[in-house]
Amino acid sequence: MATPEERLAELGLSVPELVPPVAAYVPARRSRSYVYTSGQLPMRDGAMVATGKVGADVNVEVATECARQAALNAIAAVRTQVPLSKVAGVVKVVVFVASAPDFTGQPGVANGASELLGSAFGEAGQHARSAVGVSVLPLDAPVEVELVVEVAGGSELRK
Amino acid sequence: MATPEERLAELGLSVPELVPPVAAYVPARRSRSYVYTSGQLPMRDGAMVATGKVGADVNVEVATECARQAALNAIAAVRTQVPLSKVAGVVKVVVFVASAPDFTGQPGVANGASELLGSAFGEAGQHARSAVGVSVLPLDAPVEVELVVEVAGGSELRK
Amino acid sequence: MATPEERLAELGLSVPELVPPVAAYVPARRSRSYVYTSGQLPMRDGAMVATGKVGADVNVEVATECARQAALNAIAAVRTQVPLSKVAGVVKVVVFVASAPDFTGQPGVANGASELLGSAFGEAGQHARSAVGVSVLPLDAPVEVELVVEVAGGSELRK
Repeated sequence: MATPEERLAELGLSVPELVPPVAAYVPARRSRSYVYTSGQLPMRDGAMVATGKVGADVNVEVATECARQAALNAIAAVRTQVPLSKVAGVVKVVVFVASAPDFTGQPGVANGASELLGSAFGEAGQHARSAVGVSVLPLDAPVEVELVVEVAGGSELRK
Repeated sequence: MATPEERLAELGLSVPELVPPVAAYVPARRSRSYVYTSGQLPMRDGAMVATGKVGADVNVEVATECARQAALNAIAAVRTQVPLSKVAGVVKVVVFVASAPDFTGQPGVANGASELLGSAFGEAGQHARSAVGVSVLPLDAPVEVELVVEVAGGSELRK
Repeated sequence: MATPEERLAELGLSVPELVPPVAAYVPARRSRSYVYTSGQLPMRDGAMVATGKVGADVNVEVATECARQAALNAIAAVRTQVPLSKVAGVVKVVVFVASAPDFTGQPGVANGASELLGSAFGEAGQHARSAVGVSVLPLDAPVEVELVVEVAGGSELRK
């Protein structure tokens, strides 16, 4: 069985090291059998992959790549709490897409995140998802992705 | 005790058959004692009940009906995972309302979803809820509804 | 060990009494080891602290105070379900910020909520968070805050 890291490596991807910001919140939090992530932005090597509204400043192809990067960062956030091999399943994904008022293709953009999660976790990566168009996101990001994942054998109290 | 299906039938409503799309995600996911749904749109018999922004293209009455239909579809999504008679409670509902910038009546629209859930599940349908106005939703839907429901006796590992 | 109420009192704050509205939903819902709150608005003594869009009608300082008040109300919503001393941790916080289209400072506004939760719950208040800019919120509120909290020893079935 390939690990999530190995599956991603086959795609030429690696889970970034996530440097938790000095902030009033954390990138992810474990609670019993679950890890909840903070909303993750499409940062790569310290810079946003793109900025602006999808359907105006950012096209669908770039936005989809942003969703993919944000999902990769969300996986990195999960890994601050548990080894990825302990992820029993990705339960819920919300993809917020900063959208021009007439852009209605949020599901296509969100597929960038969903497909990356499928690549990383296989069948365990099959998740419920909401894709929503919003007016603007932090730092003018085009996409923000948050996850709820289930942890294997995680009914013990959290550490 | 009437089943949720029987309660809805008294209102002339039936839970639609949900044909899971070939997609990178699923309509709902079971995780231990919970089912999380994907964001559901007001589709009925394969077409959107209405499209556009509430407060501009869509009036409150039609938007409320959209919320009701989206909630019915969310119940259908839950039923892909567990029989509705196993739903111990509706825990959380988020209602995203595609809103004209000056439309602030999201709670009234969201009541279309909340009241349908009350009709279907009775006291077990009493839920926490967030109603949020967003700029645009997939396929130009006026409303999107997602649920977290608790499953009775569901502490065993998922299938 | 100071209780959350005592910690807040040191800041001159008290958790308001929350009068549950006659509504199709409830301010918060307990489910097994968790309490989910409804989206809470910055109401104080029956009136909104401010109304309008952040970055246009409302400045960052006032918006941050709104986030703080909404978080205080969310704590009050939790207390309708469990004593605050039973809160094992704040797991997830979503902060919706009604934003002018060019306002990208949602994280700073959301810190008003995150810091209040840290003040109230200490280390247990460290949470995952999503901050999202939306077009408009109920009653023209600038901010809406929802919480998921974990309850200590809460694996028994809910009452």
